[in-house]
Amino acid sequence: MNFQVIKRTLGWLLIFEAIFFLVPMLTALVYGELEGIDFLLSALICLSAGFLLTRGKTKNNAVYAKEGFVIVALSWIVMSLFGALPFWFSGVVPSYVDALFETVSGFTTTGASILYGNEIEGMPKCLLMWRSFTHWVGGMGVLVFILAFLPLSGGQNINIMRAESPGPEVSKLVPKIRQTAGILYLIYAVMTVLMFVMLVFDMPVFDALTTAFATAGTGGFAIKGDSFASYSTYSQIVVTVFMILFSVNFASYYLVLRGRFKESLTEEVRAFFIIVIAAISLITLNLCLTDSAAYEYTTGEAIKHSAFSVASVMSTTGFATANFDIWPVFSKTVLVILMFVGACAGSTGGGMKVSRMLIWGKGVTNDMKRMLHPKQVKKITMDKRVVGHEVVRGANTYLVAYFMIYIASMLLIALDCQDLVTNFTSVATTINNVGPGLGAVGPNGNFAGFTALSKLVYIFDMLAGRLEVFPMLLLFAPNTWKK
Amino acid sequence: MNFQVIKRTLGWLLIFEAIFFLVPMLTALVYGELEGIDFLLSALICLSAGFLLTRGKTKNNAVYAKEGFVIVALSWIVMSLFGALPFWFSGVVPSYVDALFETVSGFTTTGASILYGNEIEGMPKCLLMWRSFTHWVGGMGVLVFILAFLPLSGGQNINIMRAESPGPEVSKLVPKIRQTAGILYLIYAVMTVLMFVMLVFDMPVFDALTTAFATAGTGGFAIKGDSFASYSTYSQIVVTVFMILFSVNFASYYLVLRGRFKESLTEEVRAFFIIVIAAISLITLNLCLTDSAAYEYTTGEAIKHSAFSVASVMSTTGFATANFDIWPVFSKTVLVILMFVGACAGSTGGGMKVSRMLIWGKGVTNDMKRMLHPKQVKKITMDKRVVGHEVVRGANTYLVAYFMIYIASMLLIALDCQDLVTNFTSVATTINNVGPGLGAVGPNGNFAGFTALSKLVYIFDMLAGRLEVFPMLLLFAPNTWKK
Repeated sequence: MNFQVIKRTLGWLLIFEAIFFLVPMLTALVYGELEGIDFLLSALICLSAGFLLTRGKTKNNAVYAKEGFVIVALSWIVMSLFGALPFWFSGVVPSYVDALFETVSGFTTTGASILYGNEIEGMPKCLLMWRSFTHWVGGMGVLVFILAFLPLSGGQNINIMRAESPGPEVSKLVPKIRQTAGILYLIYAVMTVLMFVMLVFDMPVFDALTTAFATAGTGGFAIKGDSFASYSTYSQIVVTVFMILFSVNFASYYLVLRGRFKESLTEEVRAFFIIVIAAISLITLNLCLTDSAAYEYTTGEAIKHSAFSVASVMSTTGFATANFDIWPVFSKTVLVILMFVGACAGSTGGGMKVSRMLIWGKGVTNDMKRMLHPKQVKKITMDKRVVGHEVVRGANTYLVAYFMIYIASMLLIALDCQDLVTNFTSVATTINNVGPGLGAVGPNGNFAGFTALSKLVYIFDMLAGRLEVFPMLLLFAPNTWKK
Repeated sequence: MNFQVIKRTLGWLLIFEAIFFLVPMLTALVYGELEGIDFLLSALICLSAGFLLTRGKTKNNAVYAKEGFVIVALSWIVMSLFGALPFWFSGVVPSYVDALFETVSGFTTTGASILYGNEIEGMPKCLLMWRSFTHWVGGMGVLVFILAFLPLSGGQNINIMRAESPGPEVSKLVPKIRQTAGILYLIYAVMTVLMFVMLVFDMPVFDALTTAFATAGTGGFAIKGDSFASYSTYSQIVVTVFMILFSVNFASYYLVLRGRFKESLTEEVRAFFIIVIAAISLITLNLCLTDSAAYEYTTGEAIKHSAFSVASVMSTTGFATANFDIWPVFSKTVLVILMFVGACAGSTGGGMKVSRMLIWGKGVTNDMKRMLHPKQVKKITMDKRVVGHEVVRGANTYLVAYFMIYIASMLLIALDCQDLVTNFTSVATTINNVGPGLGAVGPNGNFAGFTALSKLVYIFDMLAGRLEVFPMLLLFAPNTWKK
């Protein structure tokens, strides 16, 4: 294990985090909030630690697969540990575990909160800005961001990118990793600005900025107690559209920019849109056809709420315009399934990813053909290219490891004695980085009522979900640290 | 597709089913019940259909993988369609779909019922006997039974056995399939007789016989409204022990008989017992340490109920001595997880099977090692033998296909508007062939309240679970029927 390169990267990460703190500091300055000092203090701590860690020369810059996983897992943990400081210093979140939960939820773009609606609305604006900004930083990946600006270790950055980027395969847009990272962040930034501009006509600058950050990262922290329910229909539609846009593989946008429109509509993107449209139609129908005393929607409202909820859950953003916990069980079932499906690979969204669903579906079809005609074996293809054996196996191993973590989490959470629906969906919503679940963690609930042990489990699940299981698992495997 | 051999096998199956009807007919004779006539009528229908189908010479006896799957899937469907007739003819179950549900639940050894406790206790004894006897027939597999008595098609019976036997791999005990089937049924019969003898001291002959049939097949149909709660502690312990014994791979018993004790304790069997002991300990602790108004157990009762419930759920039998739906959520979570784990491969139990858990766990560990050291690839081994690539892939494909059916079922059941816990556990309990779930389908509930559509979904799930997914899926794949 190359400890030097790990130490150095963590150092650079902390220096970058100190720079990230400038955003809430500036907010504090604009609104004249004293909590800016907590951010200044946190930034100084990050800087000091960062300089200490980056001191000395690194003899060996090699980052193999092993170092890639460890760097990514440790980076996200360290970044969260330091990112939680302002919440704690300011006294707004008195418990450090709660502050850590909120920060991990931010960076992993989950958007689950330990705060009640009135607590959120009473928060200083600089802390609200930090909450939303963590989504933006975590959305596209912080190491990918650093890679774009800093040549860390020669040509082996692919191992870091591979460990941090979501999806079964990492596609380099251009031969150089650094350029690829730069292009991705440029598309990301431009889309965020575009969304901000479209929102700022309809809401205050602060609201537009935080909403744009939280949507771009498919995070879901809102600055209002009722999430997104009290904004205008125009803004709700803008957010619906952008939640969907940020769930699409960014490689497709690159292809569109290069004029390769036909190629940009990959199998995954097409499947994603088919699922979105099907889910919206089914839920709208279910809402309109079910007689319920709990809600009363016109057809237009039903379409609006179902579109918003489907976009929110499938993109794993987690904003809400309606409390879907009171919807009929069919609609709730569809939403819970979408939590697991998640967004496209290479987007800022979470979940298992549509491309893995395709690989699994094709794997089953292929194996069923093999059962019928054992001698006529064909390979699985995606977009007319053969999907490598390694990628298929990787997707299968991911599924098993995912459920292992899921079951262990369910057991530990069950000690908290909540009901089964709360337990099942709280793990679903954290491991898939969505935000709200059903029951006690529904759109109108939060994670405040759990014990510290359960919160630590959720923190692990959010990180495991964002990093797609293996970096977090390998961190705890003795084999990783053996010589 | 060799239709001739399929037709002929189905014919023989129906002739055997007519013979199976002798058991309830005899019961009707002993107890002087008129419903015996319904069985006579059903037997005559089976015989006529059987003779019609077996007429004519079969030119080609070849049973390839394809025919194996189709024969098994069709056999189980046809056997259930005809087996449901006595329930329907007698008027005890007025709806044919309900009668089919009950019969499929019997043959697949699920034990889920559409009958209320008082309806079961008011039933004629011959129908109760048939319910329990279907468990015994389905437990070890009906085609394996026929293979033991009838040489169907030369040397290719392995394709039928493979499709019907549970587990990721089929192990032939002796070189000849027919002999293997015979040995398995002999062990099965001897163990059933042993259990009957141990029970008959403590309960009426009829009760002992039906309990032995239902336990041997790990079925779970009881002849009392409160399942197994009102029997003596002695009988409850006997049933606990035998539920566990019938969940062990029968190949291990063969090895014990041959004096190869050390070999008989395979990795799967050891893992099975570790899980059983761990689950009983955890639930006992949870029951004793939780203050609940819903139940009051002494430590002894807590051990007894948790041991019975763990054995019942993990063996996928489904008997109950206590209503675990009122237990604390941790205990319920453990039981739901055990429903999925299931019994050992090559036993009469259902679920995903312990051996698949081992293959998955080893697959993840192996792949994690590969991530760290891509060049040091080792194969997965079980009991010191390499697990074939095909077997690993088969287990993975099974997992994906299993969840595809699970999700589709959840969506269709959700139209019934029950709560999420009922929906989730009702699919779990049918696809894993357990019997009771939680909520409306808990140990004190049943499946009567669902629509016919939902019942058909459950029927499909029970068959898919018993035949381990692929025979049922292939039956509906257009590719199977293409030339």
